[in-house]
Amino acid sequence: MSADTITAGLLVIGDEILSGRTKDVNIGATADFCTDLGIELREVRVVSDETDDIVEAVNALRARYTYVFTTGGIGPTHDDITADAIARAFGVALPINPHARAMLEARWQQTGTEVNAARLRMARIPEGAELIVNSVSAAPGFRIGNVHVMAGVPIIMRAMLETLAPTLKGGRKVMSVTVKAAVGEGTIGGPLAALQEQYPDVKMGSYPQMGKGRVMTELVLRSSDPVRLEEAAGKVRIMVTEAHRSAGIAPPDEAY
Amino acid sequence: MSADTITAGLLVIGDEILSGRTKDVNIGATADFCTDLGIELREVRVVSDETDDIVEAVNALRARYTYVFTTGGIGPTHDDITADAIARAFGVALPINPHARAMLEARWQQTGTEVNAARLRMARIPEGAELIVNSVSAAPGFRIGNVHVMAGVPIIMRAMLETLAPTLKGGRKVMSVTVKAAVGEGTIGGPLAALQEQYPDVKMGSYPQMGKGRVMTELVLRSSDPVRLEEAAGKVRIMVTEAHRSAGIAPPDEAY
Repeated sequence: MSADTITAGLLVIGDEILSGRTKDVNIGATADFCTDLGIELREVRVVSDETDDIVEAVNALRARYTYVFTTGGIGPTHDDITADAIARAFGVALPINPHARAMLEARWQQTGTEVNAARLRMARIPEGAELIVNSVSAAPGFRIGNVHVMAGVPIIMRAMLETLAPTLKGGRKVMSVTVKAAVGEGTIGGPLAALQEQYPDVKMGSYPQMGKGRVMTELVLRSSDPVRLEEAAGKVRIMVTEAHRSAGIAPPDEAY
Repeated sequence: MSADTITAGLLVIGDEILSGRTKDVNIGATADFCTDLGIELREVRVVSDETDDIVEAVNALRARYTYVFTTGGIGPTHDDITADAIARAFGVALPINPHARAMLEARWQQTGTEVNAARLRMARIPEGAELIVNSVSAAPGFRIGNVHVMAGVPIIMRAMLETLAPTLKGGRKVMSVTVKAAVGEGTIGGPLAALQEQYPDVKMGSYPQMGKGRVMTELVLRSSDPVRLEEAAGKVRIMVTEAHRSAGIAPPDEAY
């Protein structure tokens, strides 16, 4: 990991993910978002709506990575305890934030929505945090230290990521090259490992393609150095061509 | 958590999930699987193909939960290091397992596949582990202690879960009731919190339905006690009916 590597951890909060009732899509969206910005997403955790579990996970992740993102648990109901847990993790109070309250009340006035204690839970923001506004919902997320607290509803979460993007430091952008092989992983595993040793700065992944009617393997090379990436990709292409030839098969049309 | 609560942690292993290249579906499948068996999935972690990260995560999870499941990293290429990491976590050797080798060789003979060092990586099984065979792939997963190591390819992973099901101790089955409300979470957040306090043994979750044209909230009640669950659900239905009446709106057709 070079000095300019920017890392991130993601914490997904919610019983509904762990019970299977809701199928998460925020992990994939955050992964794509980080990759686009050159941020290396290093770890994801999913925990339930339990304060202790959230506190422990957020403290572990924020000590370890440049940025932490959380999704879920910032709505108006009793099971929305993320703000409480983050305030406890940082040892700060959780007052009603006047700016957040004003934003929410402005929206409620437009929609004729009553102000009540449950709704005002959404204006409780840990002391010292900055709001993360978004275009979809009036309820803000917030940033405290390196932790970015976002909604769990995917469309709101993605709007919050858009808000955040200009505030985050990107790393060296990682580029990738995919080489397709019409042979199984086992056939090229040996020579691929040898190439990986020659190019430790180019990360080589191998992904079998199942259920497509014929055996296919996708080799994905990633590096922040475009020259080394192309060099390594060239050698992998030669290796794959040789594997096709020894197997006596024509390379697939869609290869390379 | 009662004495007969059976818990689980899931460890998803793979750079491709963290880069966004592959969108995980194994978390949702494992969550559904656990819920069906009455096993409480308490935590999920996603880590990259790094031995230290895998060892740390699996040791944290296996100390904490009844069962640990892992997915990913048991193929024939150099980035498939899950077996190595699990062997290190348990402090055992990682020899070629004769039974696994025989299963693989039988399949390779059928398909005319050459035996090589890369493919034989898939026969390396930590000492003391039991194989998890599956109907899709000849490459087995394995169980060691309370840790169940499975493939990352979803169709193989699900086949391995089916193999495992009869070997796992299920907990008290948790049942759920969903009550739909045609008002926002903020409207019913207060009374819902009061009902949650009355029924601490019935877990009440609240889920806003976004982008459906009208405001909807789904309230999901879960309990392993069917009588308490129905009692609590009855009170939640009355609360929602009252909320509809004060808002002057007809209950949605699809409510209850």
